[in-house]
Amino acid sequence: MRNIKLTIEYDGAQYLGWQIQNSRLPPVVRRKRTVQEVIEKTLQKILQEKIRLIGSGRTDAGVHAKAQVANFKTISKLSLEKLQRALNGLLPKDISIAEVAEKNLDFHSRFLAKSKVYRYTILNRSFPSALLRNRVYFYPHNLDIKLMRQEAAYLLGKRNFKSFCASQSSSRNTVRTIKRISIKKLHYDWRQAAGGLNRGFLINVDIESNGFLYNMARNIVGTLLEIGRGRLPKGCLKKILNARDRRLAGPTAPAKGLCLMQVKY
Amino acid sequence: MRNIKLTIEYDGAQYLGWQIQNSRLPPVVRRKRTVQEVIEKTLQKILQEKIRLIGSGRTDAGVHAKAQVANFKTISKLSLEKLQRALNGLLPKDISIAEVAEKNLDFHSRFLAKSKVYRYTILNRSFPSALLRNRVYFYPHNLDIKLMRQEAAYLLGKRNFKSFCASQSSSRNTVRTIKRISIKKLHYDWRQAAGGLNRGFLINVDIESNGFLYNMARNIVGTLLEIGRGRLPKGCLKKILNARDRRLAGPTAPAKGLCLMQVKY
Repeated sequence: MRNIKLTIEYDGAQYLGWQIQNSRLPPVVRRKRTVQEVIEKTLQKILQEKIRLIGSGRTDAGVHAKAQVANFKTISKLSLEKLQRALNGLLPKDISIAEVAEKNLDFHSRFLAKSKVYRYTILNRSFPSALLRNRVYFYPHNLDIKLMRQEAAYLLGKRNFKSFCASQSSSRNTVRTIKRISIKKLHYDWRQAAGGLNRGFLINVDIESNGFLYNMARNIVGTLLEIGRGRLPKGCLKKILNARDRRLAGPTAPAKGLCLMQVKY
Repeated sequence: MRNIKLTIEYDGAQYLGWQIQNSRLPPVVRRKRTVQEVIEKTLQKILQEKIRLIGSGRTDAGVHAKAQVANFKTISKLSLEKLQRALNGLLPKDISIAEVAEKNLDFHSRFLAKSKVYRYTILNRSFPSALLRNRVYFYPHNLDIKLMRQEAAYLLGKRNFKSFCASQSSSRNTVRTIKRISIKKLHYDWRQAAGGLNRGFLINVDIESNGFLYNMARNIVGTLLEIGRGRLPKGCLKKILNARDRRLAGPTAPAKGLCLMQVKY
């Protein structure tokens, strides 16, 4: 028996997310597939045995991944290189396998994950981008990035994130530990030769946590944007956090701006 | 009468290119639209007058643009800001307007274009990328970039590019002047924390020319890749160029890797 670890990149646009989340989705949405089931079926086709693929965790419908991690057990002796090639050859083009590695038998991609890093990307300028439209949240309002950083600092450490957890979530324990939250503003100039004029910015919000509640990253970003725009006052994040009430936080930022960047073990 | 210049970004995947090229396309392909006709119709809806939109030049089906330029004349007094907002509001999301400017009446986006810059992007690593799949050409073979650069230098200056022009093209004059051709190799690591290991490269081939023949940029790139891979020998580019025979050059690289970056006036 071997234990194989996959590192997976995917474009979430055409998927219901990593894993079926029955209770959360109306039946009509079920026509789309999940990334997990597509990879599982492809593995079964290649290896000709029943495969159970374990992901590091769920990603919501429409969320992307640059390096989701999953593992499965197999009796196959197929080389890692051949397996990677077979997977990338048979999978739909919006899923690709960046790495295939063999781990010892007790490696478990979910239980052993120490933390995850998500990146949320905002296009902050006055006009949208045709080429970036499926990867970023277009937000044409002036943002006070300094204030956003100050407020975000309240989220660091072990906290109860109930206010940032989707109300329909079934999670009982809403305590998580955010290890890092950084907000970086990059010039994004549509001109080839970027002159003096700043035509816009890409803002990357990176959040590293030991775990994420349902919609937590997107609710944090939605709240930070309200703060940056001046719709929520300075000091509000502490109050929102302490209230443990989802209704006080900002809206859920759209899924397409979110990407799972790394799972740490 | 006003003369309005538009700078346009588009994702070419869903379009037949900038402009209908009747003679070049079988009738079955005509179900897709062109970028020009979509913008023209939207302008007519906004301005309530007949509009003739002149582009700087054609882009092939599937080719992207970061800054295509076009102009049109109008009797409307609508402010440039309002026009840009109305266009970005009404256009499909895969076309966006980066700039709207007023020029004097003799500005002509095609006749006055001095040069154009195209960028072709290659993903050079052993496995494809789900997130970049619609913007890059995945090329998993070792490439001798130094040799590619040496050979590319033969293309500089005023040359007859008949060997790089699609055979079905009707262009009589196949002489163009390439002002610059650069091949840049960038590390593209799928890992969040890029360690010592190089997991792959993005290769940008930038070509600036006073004009491009049908498929010229893609045929040049396809030929350079054959050279880089060792399928065509050192010194061949000069021979291919002098032969003025399309059959000697390499294959046409896929449209999705190509993007019109800039039109210079």
